[in-house]
Amino acid sequence: MERNIESFIGCDSDYENADIVLYGAPFDSTTSYRPGARFGPSAIRHESFGLETYSPYQHTDLTDRSVFDSGDMELCFGDPDRALSDIQSRASIILADNKFPLLLGGEHLVTLGAVRAIYQKYPGLHILHFDAHADLRDDYLGARLSHACVMRRCHDLLGDGRIHQFCIRSGDRSEFMFAQAGHTDMHPFDFNGLKQLVDVLRRNRTPVYLTVDLDCLDPSVFPGTGTPEAGGVSFLQLLDAIRISCGADIVGADINELAPMLDSSGMSTAVACKVLRELILALNC
Amino acid sequence: MERNIESFIGCDSDYENADIVLYGAPFDSTTSYRPGARFGPSAIRHESFGLETYSPYQHTDLTDRSVFDSGDMELCFGDPDRALSDIQSRASIILADNKFPLLLGGEHLVTLGAVRAIYQKYPGLHILHFDAHADLRDDYLGARLSHACVMRRCHDLLGDGRIHQFCIRSGDRSEFMFAQAGHTDMHPFDFNGLKQLVDVLRRNRTPVYLTVDLDCLDPSVFPGTGTPEAGGVSFLQLLDAIRISCGADIVGADINELAPMLDSSGMSTAVACKVLRELILALNC
Amino acid sequence: MERNIESFIGCDSDYENADIVLYGAPFDSTTSYRPGARFGPSAIRHESFGLETYSPYQHTDLTDRSVFDSGDMELCFGDPDRALSDIQSRASIILADNKFPLLLGGEHLVTLGAVRAIYQKYPGLHILHFDAHADLRDDYLGARLSHACVMRRCHDLLGDGRIHQFCIRSGDRSEFMFAQAGHTDMHPFDFNGLKQLVDVLRRNRTPVYLTVDLDCLDPSVFPGTGTPEAGGVSFLQLLDAIRISCGADIVGADINELAPMLDSSGMSTAVACKVLRELILALNC
Amino acid sequence: MERNIESFIGCDSDYENADIVLYGAPFDSTTSYRPGARFGPSAIRHESFGLETYSPYQHTDLTDRSVFDSGDMELCFGDPDRALSDIQSRASIILADNKFPLLLGGEHLVTLGAVRAIYQKYPGLHILHFDAHADLRDDYLGARLSHACVMRRCHDLLGDGRIHQFCIRSGDRSEFMFAQAGHTDMHPFDFNGLKQLVDVLRRNRTPVYLTVDLDCLDPSVFPGTGTPEAGGVSFLQLLDAIRISCGADIVGADINELAPMLDSSGMSTAVACKVLRELILALNC
Amino acid sequence: MERNIESFIGCDSDYENADIVLYGAPFDSTTSYRPGARFGPSAIRHESFGLETYSPYQHTDLTDRSVFDSGDMELCFGDPDRALSDIQSRASIILADNKFPLLLGGEHLVTLGAVRAIYQKYPGLHILHFDAHADLRDDYLGARLSHACVMRRCHDLLGDGRIHQFCIRSGDRSEFMFAQAGHTDMHPFDFNGLKQLVDVLRRNRTPVYLTVDLDCLDPSVFPGTGTPEAGGVSFLQLLDAIRISCGADIVGADINELAPMLDSSGMSTAVACKVLRELILALNC
Amino acid sequence: MERNIESFIGCDSDYENADIVLYGAPFDSTTSYRPGARFGPSAIRHESFGLETYSPYQHTDLTDRSVFDSGDMELCFGDPDRALSDIQSRASIILADNKFPLLLGGEHLVTLGAVRAIYQKYPGLHILHFDAHADLRDDYLGARLSHACVMRRCHDLLGDGRIHQFCIRSGDRSEFMFAQAGHTDMHPFDFNGLKQLVDVLRRNRTPVYLTVDLDCLDPSVFPGTGTPEAGGVSFLQLLDAIRISCGADIVGADINELAPMLDSSGMSTAVACKVLRELILALNC
Repeated sequence: MERNIESFIGCDSDYENADIVLYGAPFDSTTSYRPGARFGPSAIRHESFGLETYSPYQHTDLTDRSVFDSGDMELCFGDPDRALSDIQSRASIILADNKFPLLLGGEHLVTLGAVRAIYQKYPGLHILHFDAHADLRDDYLGARLSHACVMRRCHDLLGDGRIHQFCIRSGDRSEFMFAQAGHTDMHPFDFNGLKQLVDVLRRNRTPVYLTVDLDCLDPSVFPGTGTPEAGGVSFLQLLDAIRISCGADIVGADINELAPMLDSSGMSTAVACKVLRELILALNC
Repeated sequence: MERNIESFIGCDSDYENADIVLYGAPFDSTTSYRPGARFGPSAIRHESFGLETYSPYQHTDLTDRSVFDSGDMELCFGDPDRALSDIQSRASIILADNKFPLLLGGEHLVTLGAVRAIYQKYPGLHILHFDAHADLRDDYLGARLSHACVMRRCHDLLGDGRIHQFCIRSGDRSEFMFAQAGHTDMHPFDFNGLKQLVDVLRRNRTPVYLTVDLDCLDPSVFPGTGTPEAGGVSFLQLLDAIRISCGADIVGADINELAPMLDSSGMSTAVACKVLRELILALNC
Repeated sequence: MERNIESFIGCDSDYENADIVLYGAPFDSTTSYRPGARFGPSAIRHESFGLETYSPYQHTDLTDRSVFDSGDMELCFGDPDRALSDIQSRASIILADNKFPLLLGGEHLVTLGAVRAIYQKYPGLHILHFDAHADLRDDYLGARLSHACVMRRCHDLLGDGRIHQFCIRSGDRSEFMFAQAGHTDMHPFDFNGLKQLVDVLRRNRTPVYLTVDLDCLDPSVFPGTGTPEAGGVSFLQLLDAIRISCGADIVGADINELAPMLDSSGMSTAVACKVLRELILALNC
Repeated sequence: MERNIESFIGCDSDYENADIVLYGAPFDSTTSYRPGARFGPSAIRHESFGLETYSPYQHTDLTDRSVFDSGDMELCFGDPDRALSDIQSRASIILADNKFPLLLGGEHLVTLGAVRAIYQKYPGLHILHFDAHADLRDDYLGARLSHACVMRRCHDLLGDGRIHQFCIRSGDRSEFMFAQAGHTDMHPFDFNGLKQLVDVLRRNRTPVYLTVDLDCLDPSVFPGTGTPEAGGVSFLQLLDAIRISCGADIVGADINELAPMLDSSGMSTAVACKVLRELILALNC
Repeated sequence: MERNIESFIGCDSDYENADIVLYGAPFDSTTSYRPGARFGPSAIRHESFGLETYSPYQHTDLTDRSVFDSGDMELCFGDPDRALSDIQSRASIILADNKFPLLLGGEHLVTLGAVRAIYQKYPGLHILHFDAHADLRDDYLGARLSHACVMRRCHDLLGDGRIHQFCIRSGDRSEFMFAQAGHTDMHPFDFNGLKQLVDVLRRNRTPVYLTVDLDCLDPSVFPGTGTPEAGGVSFLQLLDAIRISCGADIVGADINELAPMLDSSGMSTAVACKVLRELILALNC
Repeated sequence: MERNIESFIGCDSDYENADIVLYGAPFDSTTSYRPGARFGPSAIRHESFGLETYSPYQHTDLTDRSVFDSGDMELCFGDPDRALSDIQSRASIILADNKFPLLLGGEHLVTLGAVRAIYQKYPGLHILHFDAHADLRDDYLGARLSHACVMRRCHDLLGDGRIHQFCIRSGDRSEFMFAQAGHTDMHPFDFNGLKQLVDVLRRNRTPVYLTVDLDCLDPSVFPGTGTPEAGGVSFLQLLDAIRISCGADIVGADINELAPMLDSSGMSTAVACKVLRELILALNC
């Protein structure tokens, strides 16, 4: 008899043969409002058995891909430094093995761990950032490692003009001014301008990290998140944006901020599963 | 004093004088993921007292119709054969009395009981099928009587080209290939092509069974169902589709797959009530 | 040390310096279906700390305004007469001090208390009414002071042609006939015609009361309300309508019918907070 | 085919042949904290199909009794006077037909309607009152017809020494002083003294009304109520107390204050069903 | 990197070296009232990471034991025959390998599969049955394979006097009469008589199957089950009963009827985890 | 008009005149399992309006006391060091003003901040610790500032024999061995030995800090907490223990670990409110 293995559905490859490696970061210690994103990756894995592996949108199937699911890391609650370092290490190993690191958050801060690892390998890295929130605060109640500051920390690393933000509809005034000053390339509310941007990135063979904060979706579609913001995009719009983005040279990605306990209907987790399926299928790995 | 009668609101006709007869099938034993559709029909009846009988969409009122609500059947859990046979019997009696059988599920498998009865009376029967799922598996974990196989079982009965599927956005690859091979007339994602089809059906005076799996709706509108699938249609689109469909010669119908406990907000049950009201008002009985 | 003050976020002005005064009416005794709107105003205040004060839609910030939050009144449950009288008194004081009264319900009946006070000051008052329900019954199970009758009571006061209703999609037949007979100016389903109307109201310098029953929103966006009605408007449509309305001479306003316990995800309360923020920012005070 | 009759399980007698008549009062307009008791009686009826009719505690079965379930009255929300008058009328009819009136609340105020009717027939009436709350306020925020005042209103009617209160563990200081002054016979916390009291009542052939506010139970057993008060009695203690009480000459009874929506697990409704079954079986009708 | 293995906490032995083997039966198709027990075993496994492996009651630790967790079987919904046969096969393999089969339900019917396998090996088998329900119906709505009939089916196999029932407090009259007629050894309400019985079983070296329907616990402790029955035992009483029972020669066991979705607080799953830990630690394997 | 002040009911004293000062620490960043304790203090304050100020257990009233509620501190999520330092500062100010600091958590780690301040003033400090968990780990996944280590950190400060633990029923083996080695005075499961201990403490005039982790209560009474542990004490037992404890010279106290979102029934918050009321009334300030 075999042990009880729980992977995201259809992701049953060996590590050696895998092109894509899933790794979960169940961390939400800096969440300022409603916590629970720590349960996101395991919920996605657990509820994926209600999902079909086949996509009628892309006419292909997860079983056509080689994906390994390495489960959740054991991260230290209450110590963001240590947690980020552990995430960075895991991502570095996956990259060193020439596999695609696909991170499941957790709060959005976890992205910083992955970006640090990927930036080391790809110094010319750009970031595609889908999110309701600008995440550009320099600190939040004194903390510089906070989910509200994650893109600002990425900016510290990458510098001006390399973070492309879409769907943004929430932040304090200073964050919007920071973007307007040219530090980031912010597209408020929706995916306007994405196609043109990806064309440029592809032409330039720019390595791109894609980070999908699922709260870019409208709360009607995705209520199960810490800080739902009305006025978001639809599932089909996000699907489209993911497929467009995969026209660029995506070298790492994550989806994050599912807080499954906040949506007792389960539809948020189901949407997250489907977004993950479509992202895997859209990647050119 | 009278006993406590609980009917769907505005459906207070005697059986003798009724044109339409509601009958509930509180069955969900073959549901593979999240059960609870058994509570659908009684929830619809129970919560209908929060619904107006008047439709501003159709400018007419349930009290203008003659509808009898025969309540829920007592079905045997864990024995699909027996349950389907009981549903078929109830439908046959209603048909024999020249009334319109309007079934409230329950999981989608219950449709098979109704279709068997109606097919006996109308051998030229076609089916209009609104659903997120193809329901065309030949078996599910060995069971051929499963909610995931119901349209395949209907196909066994009716044969090629007589099942018209709309809004389909989930299934395994073999189901989509079964449809593409011409066995069913599948319209993925939405109601594209419905109007043209109904024109043909009306011209040919084809008897049509309409089965509405409420999960054709987007989960944002209808989260209270066993397997919510992002990317569905809106309430107004479904309303439109129902009114278009009633241009054909509808000889039987059902709505199914409300699992009220999965949506603690109650909006799913409220939507189901309104869909039922609009369906009754759209029928030419 | 200071006492624990809980105001709607960014509304920290002194009463003396305030242009706008928030006052909460935690009353829902006449709610006929699912109660709980009594908890609306305190939930809006309590959960507002998850909201940004800055609006990327209007490029302005609550801290640019002078708003005083006077908290919830202590209203007598089970006695609508007394409750309405208390609301009227509070509104009158705010008006007498030349401040803008912005009421947080509570069930929709609370609007009548505010309208009575404002009508005394502005006898030429018109009402802009956003709602899923017509609220035009003359009585409900014998009660004339009911949330289902509130616009009828306002009509008693204001007379024909001065109540402008938008988004209406539920009511009994008599209510729609009452409107069609010209007693009110009813625009079913959406905001069609709002812009033209506001142009006229502005040109005529008509004083206008704006009452927003949040159930005008689609239940997918706002499930947390007593009687959710499918087929409503989106958040962005409501936002637009509010900004258009503020082109007229708004002299008082309310938002009502949030029942936070009916939506365990919290997204309804979050939407209500954002609607309130945008309404405050759109007002020309 | 028959209409859909929904009675409390095993209560299928005709009115003519019934010894006991159930009548529901779905009213909660004066509830000061968390409303929802209006849904109590229909939930008890609806969920009773999960209950056995047989009691292993009393070795007897509901089918051995003759009980008629007259369903819920249509009461006017927001008008306690009118609601109480309707309840009184219904109770009076049942009494006039020499049947036992068994009321299902609703908030506790509904008891007053029943007591008024029964007091007319039995001027020597005493009341057995099981409750966490004293309910002896003279008014609540100005209202004298409030659930917090119901026993005080009964005292207005019956006078000193005829209300026997058990399990009381909440109230303001004045209520406890009112009792201590001898106006009521208050037994705090539990059923201490019940047996002795019932012996006296039986010997004196005193007609007794039994009112069971289910919040006398500990919240661990019965969380689904507006104002749960820790430190209550267990289910088996309540069972015992009911059977002891039925040694007296009970001439009317009620159970009240189930708010089913406040307990999503459903155990509160299940307990209420079982208490009702045991009460019916314990009555000497 | 390793695949994501999800075992009950502290149960990390290889199959070969294991003394005890856990196997999950996620089946609830015959549940007559509220389904959901299918999610029991995976919830127990999933939430066990909130449990300590050490027991202060037994001063020992799960890591001192050798337990293998074989995960959930893939059972066919809607076909009890097939499901029971699959469970029987799994139990037979474990027995053939001289390991202790410890089944996690699912609805109570799953016990029949295990008992069939164990009875083959131990024809002198007795059953210790802890449950709120007698489960002695001969059929339920026509079905003989139903969770309400499971002990009757076991009686078909074992015959009179070999099923020892404890905590029973619900059933129809015929079930209690069946027991009283001597077919089973029924101890209503609690564990009265357990100690004496186990002494006899031990002295006779009788092989015993222990089946724990967790609804023997009071609903205040364990609300998350299909049919909660007030008046049950406490956690500490059950703990005691389990340790007493393990004085006999237990040759197989199960715990069942956790329906985790019915208890949003999670305490029911937490209790089930602890009962399983204590049962494993009490077994003499 | 006044601003909206939200204090725990009956705690309306000025700071200057107050004997007791409430201060909330909405922090839960190190919670290892289910977060949410951050919402505890505001829920206690918010829901206290459903509580009576009078205690029938102690025959006294909160309005007889002088208590100031200083609201919640703004603590930095994700940075335990900074948070503890802020809590320590607040406690020190209250102590310096010769008032009694009564802390509302938050996860249990917050106690460390208060103990540090109080230990500075009272070097002979002992701690009375009511909890389901030993909280004696030296680190948790590498973090030494974790809710699972809080009593160990207090032990670092106070040394052997000065921490008296009651109700403990969960921990890993090493924690129980640490206690058995005499480092702490551990009383497992219940309040056995409390009375004798308090007698000694009183006689010695030992200054005592009382920390009540509400999960010492049985989960049936208090499910709304991160890690519910079956087998706890009842509300009345806790009440008794608090009153006994107040026989000693209590110089500071806290109650913590209410996670209100985990109990949708609200009974956990209601219990916490009542425990706080009874604690305030039992203190000799």
